[in-house]
Amino acid sequence: MARFLMGEYDVIVVGAGHAGCEAALASARMGKKTLILSINLEAVAMMACNPSIGGTGKGHLVREIDALGGEMGINIDKTFIQSKMLNTAKGPAVHSLRAQADKNRYHEEMKKTLEEQENLDLKQGEVVDLIIEDGKACGVVLKTNSVYRSKAVILATGTFLKGKIFIGESVFDSGPNGLAPSVELGDNLRKYGLPMRRFKTGTPARALGKSLDYTKMTEQPGDEKIVPFSFLNDDLKKNQISCWLTYTNEETHTVIRKNFHRSALFGGQIEGVGPRYCPSIEDKVNRFADKKRHQLFIEPEGLTTDEMYIQGMSSSLPEDVQEQFYKTIPGLENLKIVRPAYAIEYDCIDPLDLKLNLENRSIENLFCAGQFNGSSGYEEAAAQGLMAGINAVLKIDKKNPFILDRSEAYIGVLIDDLVTKGTNEPYRIMTSRAEYRLVLRQDNADLRLTERSYGLGLASKSRYERFLQKKKIVELEKDRLTKKMVSPEEINPLLEELGSTPVKNKISLMELMKRPQVTYESLKKIDDSRPELSDHARAQLEVQIKYEGYISKQEQQIKRFKKLEDKKLDSSFDYDKVDGLRIEARQKLNQFKPISLGQASRISGVSPADINVLLIHLEKMRRKKS
Amino acid sequence: MARFLMGEYDVIVVGAGHAGCEAALASARMGKKTLILSINLEAVAMMACNPSIGGTGKGHLVREIDALGGEMGINIDKTFIQSKMLNTAKGPAVHSLRAQADKNRYHEEMKKTLEEQENLDLKQGEVVDLIIEDGKACGVVLKTNSVYRSKAVILATGTFLKGKIFIGESVFDSGPNGLAPSVELGDNLRKYGLPMRRFKTGTPARALGKSLDYTKMTEQPGDEKIVPFSFLNDDLKKNQISCWLTYTNEETHTVIRKNFHRSALFGGQIEGVGPRYCPSIEDKVNRFADKKRHQLFIEPEGLTTDEMYIQGMSSSLPEDVQEQFYKTIPGLENLKIVRPAYAIEYDCIDPLDLKLNLENRSIENLFCAGQFNGSSGYEEAAAQGLMAGINAVLKIDKKNPFILDRSEAYIGVLIDDLVTKGTNEPYRIMTSRAEYRLVLRQDNADLRLTERSYGLGLASKSRYERFLQKKKIVELEKDRLTKKMVSPEEINPLLEELGSTPVKNKISLMELMKRPQVTYESLKKIDDSRPELSDHARAQLEVQIKYEGYISKQEQQIKRFKKLEDKKLDSSFDYDKVDGLRIEARQKLNQFKPISLGQASRISGVSPADINVLLIHLEKMRRKKS
Ligand SMILES: Cc1cc2nc3c(=O)[nH]c(=O)nc-3n(C[C@H](O)[C@H](O)[C@H](O)COP(=O)(O)OP(=O)(O)OC[C@H]3O[C@@H](n4cnc5c(N)ncnc54)[C@H](O)[C@@H]3O)c2cc1C
Ligand SMILES: Cc1cc2nc3c(=O)[nH]c(=O)nc-3n(C[C@H](O)[C@H](O)[C@H](O)COP(=O)(O)OP(=O)(O)OC[C@H]3O[C@@H](n4cnc5c(N)ncnc54)[C@H](O)[C@@H]3O)c2cc1C
Repeated sequence: MARFLMGEYDVIVVGAGHAGCEAALASARMGKKTLILSINLEAVAMMACNPSIGGTGKGHLVREIDALGGEMGINIDKTFIQSKMLNTAKGPAVHSLRAQADKNRYHEEMKKTLEEQENLDLKQGEVVDLIIEDGKACGVVLKTNSVYRSKAVILATGTFLKGKIFIGESVFDSGPNGLAPSVELGDNLRKYGLPMRRFKTGTPARALGKSLDYTKMTEQPGDEKIVPFSFLNDDLKKNQISCWLTYTNEETHTVIRKNFHRSALFGGQIEGVGPRYCPSIEDKVNRFADKKRHQLFIEPEGLTTDEMYIQGMSSSLPEDVQEQFYKTIPGLENLKIVRPAYAIEYDCIDPLDLKLNLENRSIENLFCAGQFNGSSGYEEAAAQGLMAGINAVLKIDKKNPFILDRSEAYIGVLIDDLVTKGTNEPYRIMTSRAEYRLVLRQDNADLRLTERSYGLGLASKSRYERFLQKKKIVELEKDRLTKKMVSPEEINPLLEELGSTPVKNKISLMELMKRPQVTYESLKKIDDSRPELSDHARAQLEVQIKYEGYISKQEQQIKRFKKLEDKKLDSSFDYDKVDGLRIEARQKLNQFKPISLGQASRISGVSPADINVLLIHLEKMRRKKS
Repeated sequence: MARFLMGEYDVIVVGAGHAGCEAALASARMGKKTLILSINLEAVAMMACNPSIGGTGKGHLVREIDALGGEMGINIDKTFIQSKMLNTAKGPAVHSLRAQADKNRYHEEMKKTLEEQENLDLKQGEVVDLIIEDGKACGVVLKTNSVYRSKAVILATGTFLKGKIFIGESVFDSGPNGLAPSVELGDNLRKYGLPMRRFKTGTPARALGKSLDYTKMTEQPGDEKIVPFSFLNDDLKKNQISCWLTYTNEETHTVIRKNFHRSALFGGQIEGVGPRYCPSIEDKVNRFADKKRHQLFIEPEGLTTDEMYIQGMSSSLPEDVQEQFYKTIPGLENLKIVRPAYAIEYDCIDPLDLKLNLENRSIENLFCAGQFNGSSGYEEAAAQGLMAGINAVLKIDKKNPFILDRSEAYIGVLIDDLVTKGTNEPYRIMTSRAEYRLVLRQDNADLRLTERSYGLGLASKSRYERFLQKKKIVELEKDRLTKKMVSPEEINPLLEELGSTPVKNKISLMELMKRPQVTYESLKKIDDSRPELSDHARAQLEVQIKYEGYISKQEQQIKRFKKLEDKKLDSSFDYDKVDGLRIEARQKLNQFKPISLGQASRISGVSPADINVLLIHLEKMRRKKS
């Protein structure tokens, strides 16, 4: 069968999931002629699992994606049906935004955004092979024999690559949600020697809302005051839909235990490795045998459907067992399952085979993103997609890669974890993975990242100006609060009211705000000359002032961290020439070619002693040169 | 692998396309516990091809479906984005309503209707086998080993059964639109000895709207006054979207001709038989070699997408050829294809294997509907689905089947054509197929059918009352018009204005209305006591009066037709005992067991002479009995 050339692009993105969409939009917005392909256009930004965006750690990623000029935050702001800031009882480092999405609207809006984007072509088509010349990716081949050539290719194939579904003893080839899998491409990637592996993930059943009894569950309404995901949005008003909380019980667990033998998971048919952090319900019952109950949330999938998502209850048990155990749960006694739970196993790459710019180590100009890199989750996918898109463009333009380190962004933590430390299970972000989480807050993602993205030509001018404006306003206001003094007579009645110690001398509003009992809002009464601040600016101001001490301490730690990060290592560096390195470290370093001493220090098999040896060696070289 | 029982139903519907949805809703609305299954819930009422409902002949079917209490008319009224009454320059027999649908909304609304329907369960699942006991269908087996038992099964698998897609030289197993095909069920049906065949159909490319130049096309706006599809709707107001008309030219045809050799169609890889009436563009160029141009319409697929459907240009040529020939067309010079055109081949049953109630001849309680029966088109599918649903219920209840004859409805023509005459290509309805089309108008479908459907317990009370009301109003108004006389002085000025001959004596408004130049509306001036009529009623009134002569002539023909239809033949009738029948006729009749002499007369291989023999035989038997 003869292949024929259909077109030439700068960048081709394989896959239009959460990773692919961000990659393609970034590339097109940075001015590159871009093609995005999906086996099925219905899979554009499809939410194959939970109908929500954000959550602990994940919410941070979305904010960072937004600050950098990505689309996820804007898209969920358009299409959410409930919004909630999580963990508000804890410190600002772990405040995390989470929104329920109207699934179909989320897909439709993202697809429309792709359709409208300049420089971007969207096409339905299945990639079956790559075009590789001189070890460089330079195009793709479709099932229809069409060839598209390009300067860079981004792989973002999600859970479709050699997808295999498990429901009880029934096992069959399939992509997620009844869509066709991508078989040939997986085989070809193996042929090219890429280190492929099998990971797996699972999803719970969807039930019909009208079959549930909500009076037996606890209502989970949205926030009264909605905080938008995107820094471009100020005030969003929307009618919100509730979610519902309920729990498994001993009966549930008994049904599941009795049927362990019918699970593909324990039967050994699944070779893929599942995510420890999103275990199936049979996993939970197995691993936490003494736990009396597990919570689950009933979440609406959209406004135009009665399908409800049963969060926390994914499974690969047979359909009859599913029905049996779901029905033991308060409120679910009469549930009607619309789609059964299932597990899916798929091909992904070992991310150790990638560089920090998400380029493949063995095939040049081949970038990789999303679930394909061994991660899990829409937000993790989108973050990588965005970075892969940016870096593909920079590579084409022969510019330095855009790499965020662990002190700059959760995105930096995510990518560094994946490509430097590797992962043995589907990786998801967590706030605990970030060493500098007090600085990497969701509220300041724009202050951390927008300037850099604007420099890249990605963040738009208006986004940049909004950011400058906000930054300025916060600074001005901090300045004003520092300067504005109040007398004890003016302030003490209020302090008493707030349960805060009265003052004896004049004091600045700034000082007052540092007290835990005092908020910016509470000072309003005695501060009539204050300017009107946006919610974003006010949140920023408050955190900066209240946590100044902790933050500056963390900034000191970051300085120390940066010392090693700033010690750059050239990719031509020959570690065999360094005396005193242990053999394992030498091999790993030669294979990895870390970009800095910092990255080197995180490679498994490289010890602190090895880093010291390297430090001394670098110092010697520096002296020699000068 | 052990199967397990998941549930028991009265009726199980396999497939949630246009046929399956109507079948399941009818069954549930008639009080039967019903299950509807679809491989993929995204395929519920999916419009795999053109984004429109209705059109010549098809619009009639939708009106009849609606009159009977089906859903298609209601659903398109909710979701259309343009509405047009076609053929208004011709007589009322061929007036046909057609509406552009917002594809995604159409799917969503229908899915929601299924979700909300009492007695109906909707589930995602792939049927791989039937449960057949004692020659009777009594359940289905899913891929997951789940078994659902039932008293009747309805097959409505559309183009999914062993679906195979053709794009140029590339051939692969697939359902429509990148969805997974249904392979095992097709094999099992063959195993049960059902007479399966391969048919094929094709769809054009979808293009991005922003890549087209509409200034080079002719705008096709919707009607100013919208006529709803459903008799339940009076006045619909909506902003409408335009379609666009353009033409192929010699250059287009040259590109296509040059590439005939690269078409799967001419290469012989396609074994399936395609529809003569919806030919691919290469078919048209091949068959109508001297035609200088073919028209095509550019139609929007919805309000939330920029995808445009290129009506009239389906193809299975390779992607590069597609791009080349589409670009020769005025307005399409810079088109960007979002999804390529393709042909799909699939398993369907020879409808001669069905009875008039759509039940299979060899497997009892197995009903069949839609594309599976060898038809093509959403409306044809929906009409059969509705009838299969009704008849499955009647069968369970041991009641007489509900059969519409050729003089009662287009649905009757459709089903009689399929199961009595058979078809060698995907069958579509056309007004020319109806012998009594002046009576089978789209405007009077409610008058023809609602009463019968109400009798079945399907049409709702409110629908029935609306129908009675309309009927009464039309009768009353006809009566009033007959009685109301006007003098020459009163009427002649108006007649002059309308270009109609003046009168010399008093004349009734009824008489005046029979004149071609005079409309009901035009008489308003001199008829101030008239009641306020709904649009439906007014349309009805007008046609009944204006075409009275033709209609009553056709009613005479129908009486003659009914004579043979009313001569019922028992299914136990042994044609071997009838002397004088030719052998072929005898065989066919024994195999077919027609329900009436009328049906017998339409069986291929049964001649008018054979019918005469039968007539005489029946007469003899009647005399013997009495
Ligand atoms: C069953 C299931 C359970 C999940 N559970 C969880 C969970 O518990 N927690 C969690 O955070 N996340 C979960 N997810 C993960 C989440 O859905 C994915 O991580 C996320 O969608 C990944 O985004 P992506 O862009 O990498 O890939 P996807 O969203 O899967 O998109 C892949 C894209 O690639 C396209 N594609 C693939 N192959 C080809 C090809 N050869 N040619 C052209 N296009 C191709 C597809 O059409 C699609 O557009 C689950 C997903 C599934 C399916
Ligand atoms: C490429 C293409 C071109 C077409 N061109 C035309 C045209 O030119 N003119 C025209 O009038 N019509 C055309 N159509 C036809 C029109 O789409 C169909 O006739 C119509 O959709 C048939 O409706 P249906 O209900 O019979 O089947 P579909 O709408 O195909 O629905 C079939 C349903 O069955 C389900 N299903 C199948 N197998 C199983 C199983 N084993 N288990 C569970 N569920 C199953 C599917 O999931 C789906 O829900 C075309 C269709 C396609 C795909």
